[in-house]
Amino acid sequence: MASRRQALVGDAVLLAALIDGSGMSSIAEPWRRLTGRNKAVEFVDMCLRGAAQVMLQNNPLTGLLILIAIGVGAGIAGAPRLVGGAIVGVAVGTVTALLLRADAGSLRQGLFGFSPLLTGIGVLLFLRGGALLWLLVIFGAAATTITTLALIPVLRTWGLLPFTFPFVLTTWAVLMGAYQFAAVTVATPSRPALPGAHSAPASPVTDVIPGMIEGVAQVYLIPSAVAGAIIVLGLAVNSLRAALFAIIGTVVASLVAIWYEAGAPAVEAGLWDFNAVLTAIALGAVSYRPTLPAILYTLFGIIATVFVQAALTTVLQPLGIPTLTAPFVITTWLFLLAKRHFGQDRPAPATA
Amino acid sequence: MASRRQALVGDAVLLAALIDGSGMSSIAEPWRRLTGRNKAVEFVDMCLRGAAQVMLQNNPLTGLLILIAIGVGAGIAGAPRLVGGAIVGVAVGTVTALLLRADAGSLRQGLFGFSPLLTGIGVLLFLRGGALLWLLVIFGAAATTITTLALIPVLRTWGLLPFTFPFVLTTWAVLMGAYQFAAVTVATPSRPALPGAHSAPASPVTDVIPGMIEGVAQVYLIPSAVAGAIIVLGLAVNSLRAALFAIIGTVVASLVAIWYEAGAPAVEAGLWDFNAVLTAIALGAVSYRPTLPAILYTLFGIIATVFVQAALTTVLQPLGIPTLTAPFVITTWLFLLAKRHFGQDRPAPATA
Amino acid sequence: MASRRQALVGDAVLLAALIDGSGMSSIAEPWRRLTGRNKAVEFVDMCLRGAAQVMLQNNPLTGLLILIAIGVGAGIAGAPRLVGGAIVGVAVGTVTALLLRADAGSLRQGLFGFSPLLTGIGVLLFLRGGALLWLLVIFGAAATTITTLALIPVLRTWGLLPFTFPFVLTTWAVLMGAYQFAAVTVATPSRPALPGAHSAPASPVTDVIPGMIEGVAQVYLIPSAVAGAIIVLGLAVNSLRAALFAIIGTVVASLVAIWYEAGAPAVEAGLWDFNAVLTAIALGAVSYRPTLPAILYTLFGIIATVFVQAALTTVLQPLGIPTLTAPFVITTWLFLLAKRHFGQDRPAPATA
Repeated sequence: MASRRQALVGDAVLLAALIDGSGMSSIAEPWRRLTGRNKAVEFVDMCLRGAAQVMLQNNPLTGLLILIAIGVGAGIAGAPRLVGGAIVGVAVGTVTALLLRADAGSLRQGLFGFSPLLTGIGVLLFLRGGALLWLLVIFGAAATTITTLALIPVLRTWGLLPFTFPFVLTTWAVLMGAYQFAAVTVATPSRPALPGAHSAPASPVTDVIPGMIEGVAQVYLIPSAVAGAIIVLGLAVNSLRAALFAIIGTVVASLVAIWYEAGAPAVEAGLWDFNAVLTAIALGAVSYRPTLPAILYTLFGIIATVFVQAALTTVLQPLGIPTLTAPFVITTWLFLLAKRHFGQDRPAPATA
Repeated sequence: MASRRQALVGDAVLLAALIDGSGMSSIAEPWRRLTGRNKAVEFVDMCLRGAAQVMLQNNPLTGLLILIAIGVGAGIAGAPRLVGGAIVGVAVGTVTALLLRADAGSLRQGLFGFSPLLTGIGVLLFLRGGALLWLLVIFGAAATTITTLALIPVLRTWGLLPFTFPFVLTTWAVLMGAYQFAAVTVATPSRPALPGAHSAPASPVTDVIPGMIEGVAQVYLIPSAVAGAIIVLGLAVNSLRAALFAIIGTVVASLVAIWYEAGAPAVEAGLWDFNAVLTAIALGAVSYRPTLPAILYTLFGIIATVFVQAALTTVLQPLGIPTLTAPFVITTWLFLLAKRHFGQDRPAPATA
Repeated sequence: MASRRQALVGDAVLLAALIDGSGMSSIAEPWRRLTGRNKAVEFVDMCLRGAAQVMLQNNPLTGLLILIAIGVGAGIAGAPRLVGGAIVGVAVGTVTALLLRADAGSLRQGLFGFSPLLTGIGVLLFLRGGALLWLLVIFGAAATTITTLALIPVLRTWGLLPFTFPFVLTTWAVLMGAYQFAAVTVATPSRPALPGAHSAPASPVTDVIPGMIEGVAQVYLIPSAVAGAIIVLGLAVNSLRAALFAIIGTVVASLVAIWYEAGAPAVEAGLWDFNAVLTAIALGAVSYRPTLPAILYTLFGIIATVFVQAALTTVLQPLGIPTLTAPFVITTWLFLLAKRHFGQDRPAPATA
């Protein structure tokens, strides 16, 4: 039992070290020296890494490309405020962790910035309101960091990490709570409704490929194939394997959704893909060495993510609230808990 | 604290040993020798024990009688596909555990087969569809085993076992998810609806006894009093106490439901009984020695199961999804956690 | 890891000791001698402390004043049965814990009486029915104690206490379950409904101050400003800091609710305040020394409680069930888990 417990803790430490992965080559040496000398640059570095850590990558260049992707995608979608939400979110979340004196090593890796970044985008995307809405962004980002700090010791019991679950919990709370206040208005895509036996009319999906690329950007709640392509590039800059598994995730998830005849609009917007993209990276490119059994296990995890997302969509339908990345987190936790015998991964060779 | 933790772990080990219970007499000696020599027979043995382990019994003859009961009941109900679901479920679930190299001792006791068996029946009973539906049965059974493997280390923290919760979680996910896909149709008995103040019209229950016997078969989602009688026989073959407590559970639960004026159709179909049957066996015939306080505690657990089931029925009403055996699992976990001082049980004398 | 775990356990022990706080001065010495000599008086002492422990106070005089407040408030509201529910609840809950041989020290501090007391009031307030309803009060109070005993070892893993969560779980189960039985009728203020984008019409709040005082009494489900004032007095008798933070909690919560334009009736009835009152006492007057960072952290916890309550209100709207004190418990757990570095409190000087 003691050794079992130690094994669990060991896994957590190892997994943290992997996500840490010092993915910086000599090209980036000047930047690294600068972050060591200048507190402001160090803070920017934390925030850039935060943008990348949503995808479990620890690389400021990846983060920069992702922020650019968010900017381009938000611009195309006519919602430039979403970039503001991302930047305020990651900054407030990181500052909150600094004020609460969170673990310095985790802070430097951007591990307290990525969930608040998503909260910042999510609150602005799904709610309408004035100055009080921006106050909710700041408040939500700080609350996301507190939720992260709360979940870490609980999940460490079983060698798990919170992933984006603090974003999910906090953003759900803000969105659901908003129904009770007249100062903000809920503007999620689907109105509250009871699930019907035929809520998914079988219409043919016309544009498959753009939806698959868009699905990568939907990780950041951005509906844009251009943004998706830039994000894949950002992944490749740090880890070719992460980029590859992101593509595998989005393709397989789309095919499953089409096969089981999910509604065409959601498929074409990549909404069935973004959770699977994250599961694919977490299982295929971070946790396990790419042996054949591990790859098959990852494929099964991708398929399971689609069905968990379908189930959570139904659960949240009466509230008109989206699943966010909860399907990824729940499925990945289950698959990590169930299988600890595959070869554990080593940090991939640094590329940036 | 350490000793407290050790006590918890000790309980888990003891409980596992009890469920293990080597319930095989000399009559069954040839079968045992055969399972030791032939891999195929050993696999059949695992699957038969899996059918019995839903009821916390470790006996292939009990499992065989239960499979016969499922066959008879499914035939009477005009749904012979349910036997197919049970067999595919237990086989796929056990194979998945073998592939993932799960604990060999647990595998031999059928502990990776019982939840997938129920998933196989549940998916086929509550959904309509073609070949894609059978794919869901296979997929769901495999996912049930992964969920089992994930829950074991989490619950071990407090000396608990997953019981049928992996079946509940996986089947809920598949049923809820099915609303989002046009390739399968949800065919649960109750349509999604908001609970009403008078959702339980007070109509007199006419046939009490058949419902009580049917309630035992409802553990396996089979609506048949004949099947219920065969299952009680199967229990008695392994443990008279288990058979006795199954009857106590179904009788007490029916009386509570009638007393509080639950709707007559559900009472007459034994739908208030099956969770209580499992709680009665888990608390009264497996966990505790039959002292008077332990019996009173078990009775309280049976009554609590009825109210937990009523609450979960309301929670799931807006989704049109049944509670499955979640009320049994939740109530039994609570009652096991709350009371660890009653005399722990010894394995009952072997009878098969 | 071991030291981290020990730190968690240490926190739990310390927190328990604080709540224990031997808040009895020499004035109360005769009462203390009496409780030591007479079993009946000792039982009354346990029940009185139970009434105070809802607010994390360990003082029989505080409990007496709170019971008087419940009596006065229930009388004014024309629902004197609620006092009966409180007394039956605390007595049955404590007797159940005695029968199950729960920890004697915790029993003496009233830690097995406070949740059942609330269950007794909640079941009678939100359901209508005859003798079977009173049976539910007794059954619910006993089940609340079993839930308390079950949650203690689970939460101890992370150094947390159950607070009023056993009351929340049990009362939710009874209220939700009641929809399925014709023998009792659900009489919660809000009918089951899907949340609407404009469920909170912006109407001006006219009476702010009475609502704030009433909010303190709403901790005990009593809609009366007079009762609220007596309860603040009862807090002050044991701990001026507890009384002060109760007031801070109710004022800040009301202001946040008004600012975000919550519906006027709920604000005027103090329904946004009672969870915040409990969070304020738990974080500001029990867990942390009153340094400036700790006070700011407590203020953030109060604000977070309001939004968690709004979110839970939306989640429960389709079932027509109130949040009870779940928002307090969830928020306080999160804030205690996230921040263990503030100066831990010492027992406040005894005043009664």
